[in-house]
Amino acid sequence: MASPSTSSDSPSNTPAPAPGTLGVWFVGARGSLATTATIGLSALAARLTDETGCVTGHPDLDPRGLAPWADIVVGGHDVDTVPLVKQAERLVAGGVVPAILAHQVAGELEATEARLRPGVRGGEAADQRAIVEQLADDIRAFAAGVDRVVVIDVSSTEAPHDAGADAVTWADLQAAWAAGRAPLAPSSTYACAALLAGAPYVAFTPSPGIDVPALLELAAERGLPYAGGDGKTGETLVKSALAPMFSTRSLAVRSWTSINLLGGGDGSTLSDPAARASKTGTKRSGLESMLGHEVPGPMHIDYVEDLGDWKTAWDHVRFDGFLGTRMTMQFTWEGCDSTLAAPLVLDLARLTGRAAAAGETGPLAALGFFFKSPMGSEEHRLAQQWDALLAWSRECADRVSS
Amino acid sequence: MASPSTSSDSPSNTPAPAPGTLGVWFVGARGSLATTATIGLSALAARLTDETGCVTGHPDLDPRGLAPWADIVVGGHDVDTVPLVKQAERLVAGGVVPAILAHQVAGELEATEARLRPGVRGGEAADQRAIVEQLADDIRAFAAGVDRVVVIDVSSTEAPHDAGADAVTWADLQAAWAAGRAPLAPSSTYACAALLAGAPYVAFTPSPGIDVPALLELAAERGLPYAGGDGKTGETLVKSALAPMFSTRSLAVRSWTSINLLGGGDGSTLSDPAARASKTGTKRSGLESMLGHEVPGPMHIDYVEDLGDWKTAWDHVRFDGFLGTRMTMQFTWEGCDSTLAAPLVLDLARLTGRAAAAGETGPLAALGFFFKSPMGSEEHRLAQQWDALLAWSRECADRVSS
Amino acid sequence: MASPSTSSDSPSNTPAPAPGTLGVWFVGARGSLATTATIGLSALAARLTDETGCVTGHPDLDPRGLAPWADIVVGGHDVDTVPLVKQAERLVAGGVVPAILAHQVAGELEATEARLRPGVRGGEAADQRAIVEQLADDIRAFAAGVDRVVVIDVSSTEAPHDAGADAVTWADLQAAWAAGRAPLAPSSTYACAALLAGAPYVAFTPSPGIDVPALLELAAERGLPYAGGDGKTGETLVKSALAPMFSTRSLAVRSWTSINLLGGGDGSTLSDPAARASKTGTKRSGLESMLGHEVPGPMHIDYVEDLGDWKTAWDHVRFDGFLGTRMTMQFTWEGCDSTLAAPLVLDLARLTGRAAAAGETGPLAALGFFFKSPMGSEEHRLAQQWDALLAWSRECADRVSS
Amino acid sequence: MASPSTSSDSPSNTPAPAPGTLGVWFVGARGSLATTATIGLSALAARLTDETGCVTGHPDLDPRGLAPWADIVVGGHDVDTVPLVKQAERLVAGGVVPAILAHQVAGELEATEARLRPGVRGGEAADQRAIVEQLADDIRAFAAGVDRVVVIDVSSTEAPHDAGADAVTWADLQAAWAAGRAPLAPSSTYACAALLAGAPYVAFTPSPGIDVPALLELAAERGLPYAGGDGKTGETLVKSALAPMFSTRSLAVRSWTSINLLGGGDGSTLSDPAARASKTGTKRSGLESMLGHEVPGPMHIDYVEDLGDWKTAWDHVRFDGFLGTRMTMQFTWEGCDSTLAAPLVLDLARLTGRAAAAGETGPLAALGFFFKSPMGSEEHRLAQQWDALLAWSRECADRVSS
Repeated sequence: MASPSTSSDSPSNTPAPAPGTLGVWFVGARGSLATTATIGLSALAARLTDETGCVTGHPDLDPRGLAPWADIVVGGHDVDTVPLVKQAERLVAGGVVPAILAHQVAGELEATEARLRPGVRGGEAADQRAIVEQLADDIRAFAAGVDRVVVIDVSSTEAPHDAGADAVTWADLQAAWAAGRAPLAPSSTYACAALLAGAPYVAFTPSPGIDVPALLELAAERGLPYAGGDGKTGETLVKSALAPMFSTRSLAVRSWTSINLLGGGDGSTLSDPAARASKTGTKRSGLESMLGHEVPGPMHIDYVEDLGDWKTAWDHVRFDGFLGTRMTMQFTWEGCDSTLAAPLVLDLARLTGRAAAAGETGPLAALGFFFKSPMGSEEHRLAQQWDALLAWSRECADRVSS
Repeated sequence: MASPSTSSDSPSNTPAPAPGTLGVWFVGARGSLATTATIGLSALAARLTDETGCVTGHPDLDPRGLAPWADIVVGGHDVDTVPLVKQAERLVAGGVVPAILAHQVAGELEATEARLRPGVRGGEAADQRAIVEQLADDIRAFAAGVDRVVVIDVSSTEAPHDAGADAVTWADLQAAWAAGRAPLAPSSTYACAALLAGAPYVAFTPSPGIDVPALLELAAERGLPYAGGDGKTGETLVKSALAPMFSTRSLAVRSWTSINLLGGGDGSTLSDPAARASKTGTKRSGLESMLGHEVPGPMHIDYVEDLGDWKTAWDHVRFDGFLGTRMTMQFTWEGCDSTLAAPLVLDLARLTGRAAAAGETGPLAALGFFFKSPMGSEEHRLAQQWDALLAWSRECADRVSS
Repeated sequence: MASPSTSSDSPSNTPAPAPGTLGVWFVGARGSLATTATIGLSALAARLTDETGCVTGHPDLDPRGLAPWADIVVGGHDVDTVPLVKQAERLVAGGVVPAILAHQVAGELEATEARLRPGVRGGEAADQRAIVEQLADDIRAFAAGVDRVVVIDVSSTEAPHDAGADAVTWADLQAAWAAGRAPLAPSSTYACAALLAGAPYVAFTPSPGIDVPALLELAAERGLPYAGGDGKTGETLVKSALAPMFSTRSLAVRSWTSINLLGGGDGSTLSDPAARASKTGTKRSGLESMLGHEVPGPMHIDYVEDLGDWKTAWDHVRFDGFLGTRMTMQFTWEGCDSTLAAPLVLDLARLTGRAAAAGETGPLAALGFFFKSPMGSEEHRLAQQWDALLAWSRECADRVSS
Repeated sequence: MASPSTSSDSPSNTPAPAPGTLGVWFVGARGSLATTATIGLSALAARLTDETGCVTGHPDLDPRGLAPWADIVVGGHDVDTVPLVKQAERLVAGGVVPAILAHQVAGELEATEARLRPGVRGGEAADQRAIVEQLADDIRAFAAGVDRVVVIDVSSTEAPHDAGADAVTWADLQAAWAAGRAPLAPSSTYACAALLAGAPYVAFTPSPGIDVPALLELAAERGLPYAGGDGKTGETLVKSALAPMFSTRSLAVRSWTSINLLGGGDGSTLSDPAARASKTGTKRSGLESMLGHEVPGPMHIDYVEDLGDWKTAWDHVRFDGFLGTRMTMQFTWEGCDSTLAAPLVLDLARLTGRAAAAGETGPLAALGFFFKSPMGSEEHRLAQQWDALLAWSRECADRVSS
């Protein structure tokens, strides 16, 4: 992991890379996911771990123009104030990160610590415009030390939020602020700040974020690319591989039941029914899109404290075959959410950074491979998303390399 | 289902179809799979069932030039002599076919019965050339009443068999026969007969069949298309949907364990270790091809008599994620092999028949979607096979429609 | 199955049995469970099926004094009016009852039909005392034709209901009725009627039923035995076999998650959160009693219409072993609730009938083997319940045989 | 853990215990199981861990007269020479033992190291009588420093071995040795040595061990208790809890399929078909005993290196209910064999030591709770074994306390 503005002194022996130093600004920089990503990035930069789990390390994906691991630097916002090193200890205790690794990158964590800034909580009474400006200033300060910044929201899931008439256009939002109203959800204040600071924005959560008409207008006006939403890391990932199988074989899925048990901060957040509504919404839409019809069946997300950062999902699929024969498939997925998501977040930083360099603007539909609810795309089938990602990746690589 | 040469009198009210009557000649015509396919075809023709499970009924697949269900007629070989109606009763008792349906199509089963001919057993001492000629004559007689015949091997799995130096070229085979030798496995005698009778050939089993150099030469010489091998209906189907997920996400699969429990005739055949070797061979190769490396893990096929025509498969996948995190996925698949395979066999008849009409010759690589071990293709990923099938299907449709 | 008062004419050739004819009066006599039990009883009487699933057919259980299958006759109440023969057709369509069997016992179903009487719905405004008297008269009329009646509640689960101060004593209840109040839940009106008619009562549902102080007083005063509550047929049954394993091996269960998918009438009833509360309450209490401590973990009961009378349950158990090692067990149970419960209901009729003959009164704690929430017992461990059942069964058998 | 003959100096503050110091002599003292048990014992003695997984810590089991953890000392034989501290490192790396714990008890491991003696390999040409005498001398030397020794075989599973006519009686064995023959399997030489040294013997493996007529005669003559065989730690444990459920509910189990995946030393040993035969034999016998009839279904034990000391078992049970309804249950068990077995081994040492003090001789049938193939008992049902253990435990406690 590079120190900002000093990439030439980085431990990596590679010459100063063409893409320049990439800054990743995490919204929720002290959470399990961002901490794991920060540790993992340092480990990749120092070659203490391999690229397992990193899509941008796949041999079929064109790597030209992607920021080398050693040339990426992390900063971010968080409302939490517990130091990254402490967060890392918690991850070690939970079996997410090997103790030895956390120890080896402790120095990098402290360096990152110095680049974190206080976040903004929901429900704060203060002037929302001022808050947004403060957040944007934080990002601008970080941007000064790197060649390009990508802002990625990896903070806790918010409840669905309707910004309403106050955020239909950028002018509406300005007017609402001027009138002392605060129409944006917290996640959207960060998205707004990113855009004002000229940074591409990636929503790895199902929170409202950039998905507000006024902010989409702002992004278009500034010519910034963005992507989202809600990382596809576990049970929904499997669904996006399996549902097309049922569909292309003309097998009739009659019900699809899902239960997700998770215990970490994410599980705790999702024990709030409103936040859970955000999550199950993004989960269900894709399934029905892939199967082409409504699919009944309960979908549970349950907090089981004892599971920590681990997630166990069980899915039960009832389908009919030829002559009405009743059949079933069930699967159990046992994974660690933080280590499944962390490399994807780093991938998104690299790919979005390169996309911006290649002149991409608006929703990056080809990044749908990473998301439960892809912005700019109706395609949920994993394999087709993969093919689209590879093709787009080659285009971007061509553009930045020529 | 049409009666041969009398399709204008068929119960279907559709006018004589453009593609003409299609004859499907089953090797193993009295087995569970062929009987289910025959019942199902009659039910489709009479609109007693819908196209669930039929790939050629998928809205994305170009249907132009495919034989209508009502214009397909069945014949075949079998060494078994138990009448189709009895076979159907067994399937009803096993819950494979609804009793009402078997009753409704009993007349069609008896009509098909009249078109079945005795097969040839392995180990028979007789003159192999004469056997092949007799089989070919049976097919020719059937062909006289239809516009086109496709021969499909759905008989029991044979052990691996090396035809050796006697079957390297068609001339070698002629010489071996002249010398009184019988180098071909039984499944290959049927394949040879099909080619001699001018019929395209499809291997739905892992038996040697057409996959003998002398026969491939014969097929090339006659300009006949063929496809195979070993229908991908259950656990391997799921693998071909899931393995690319692990691969494209750069997750490192460390072991993949499979156990298949099955009880029907297929299970009984596969309790023979030699036959099982054919099956596990086709199952394993695809997995390692999709993952790009060797994958340890046992692969069992077990006969559990009580399961009848039903199959239960359990797979356990151990994979590593980012930072070496150990994760697992397991799935259980409970399906009915005969009703999973039957519509695919009908699909293959329609698609191969149209391909022949469109002038296709040699291995039909685009049919890899249906097979564990696709002839003419190294692609095992289900989604990519689907895309290839759709594209090729459009081409064939264009050609036969123009 | 005997016709009442004409057991000597019964199709069975057995001589008039010592215990006399046993009448089973079902509350909910047209439901899936009662219909399956009625069909099954006829099939057992006519030796069309064997005693699989019948606890009273177990070789270790003392059978002396149990009513022979052929000497049991069914009657009952139901608010539903769809004839039993139609109910049977629905069960056949759902794969619960073989078509041939339903056909063979159709005559018995019609005979039973003639013994069914209209039930009482919740929320009816009428005089509750009069309703109870009418129900009791129905039972008395049925009792006139048999030697002994056992009333078994197999109707849909009601929501928890607090009869309150109006039902603390029998005198309170009389007073409340006199004042025009209707403190009893519908299930309790049936229980009250059973007691007034002098019949032992069995609660196979978690509805309030007899579990009201005033009714328990009445039962004690009349010297009647009773048993309940909520049949233990599937996932809770498995729990009562597995939880003691964890406990006796000193393994520390940290969470136990359960999800039950079911589609029949029961599933539909339980999609009502209030009714579900009754059910999950009886499910959870036993687990924590067996493990000796609180056990977190979600417990879902979900209606999945497509599953019909079938139930799929998935349980996930997280436990710690020696040195804090984290381990898991999960199981999937796929059963048919009606055929799991039906033989138990018949067992309970026979055992309760014999118990009454043996002079047993009050809660039959030894029947806890059959229940999620056993009346008169705190024992939930299946094996210990079994041992208690066997011992008590011998005692009753001794008493009625001496 | 006490140092031999110096228990008054032990780190525990408890006064010198009534039962005196107990010596546990492991055959296979450097294996995963013995090493885990040794670490765990030290941790228990130093109160660094709790009694989770220890049956003798169960509140229902009478503890009077059991050796306190701090008064137990370990010695043993092994053919392996890798030091215990290195073995512990391997267990830490495999996630079996927490790193901190291994560190804390390193001193105790080194003390134990000094008490280990070289074992004997199969196939050694040397004089078998001399080998046995050497092994016995080793045990006698260890015994000199403690009040009582229990020998426990936790070494790798041997293939079935028929000692034949040479080992029918103790005199036969003497004669065979005198004639230069070596009829005993290695595990039996350790068992013989234990008996000659006057020590009770426990077989935690399915190896032949003491189960040779000549050795049983010797044990009887010396008045020594013994117990075995083959620890019941995982999938068979679950079977012994579940099979009685099916049986007592009169459900008809039609097939029971088991697959065990394991990767550690045990898995490697069991990839040898002959050794596996020992294991599957003890596994199957109990199931059929509990169900009262033959139960078809494959039973696999597979080596999957990647799993290390962890074991994943999947079982699939097909059973029929009332009216022939087909149902299934399946479970997946994911446990760590070493930490499941280690506390049981310590329990067996304590219970067998107390039994010897209480004057018990011959096979300790009441220890069947711990074994797949209990010596002296035909009871395989877990709950009944538990009740028997508790009752016997009270008797022994009474005797040693009076």
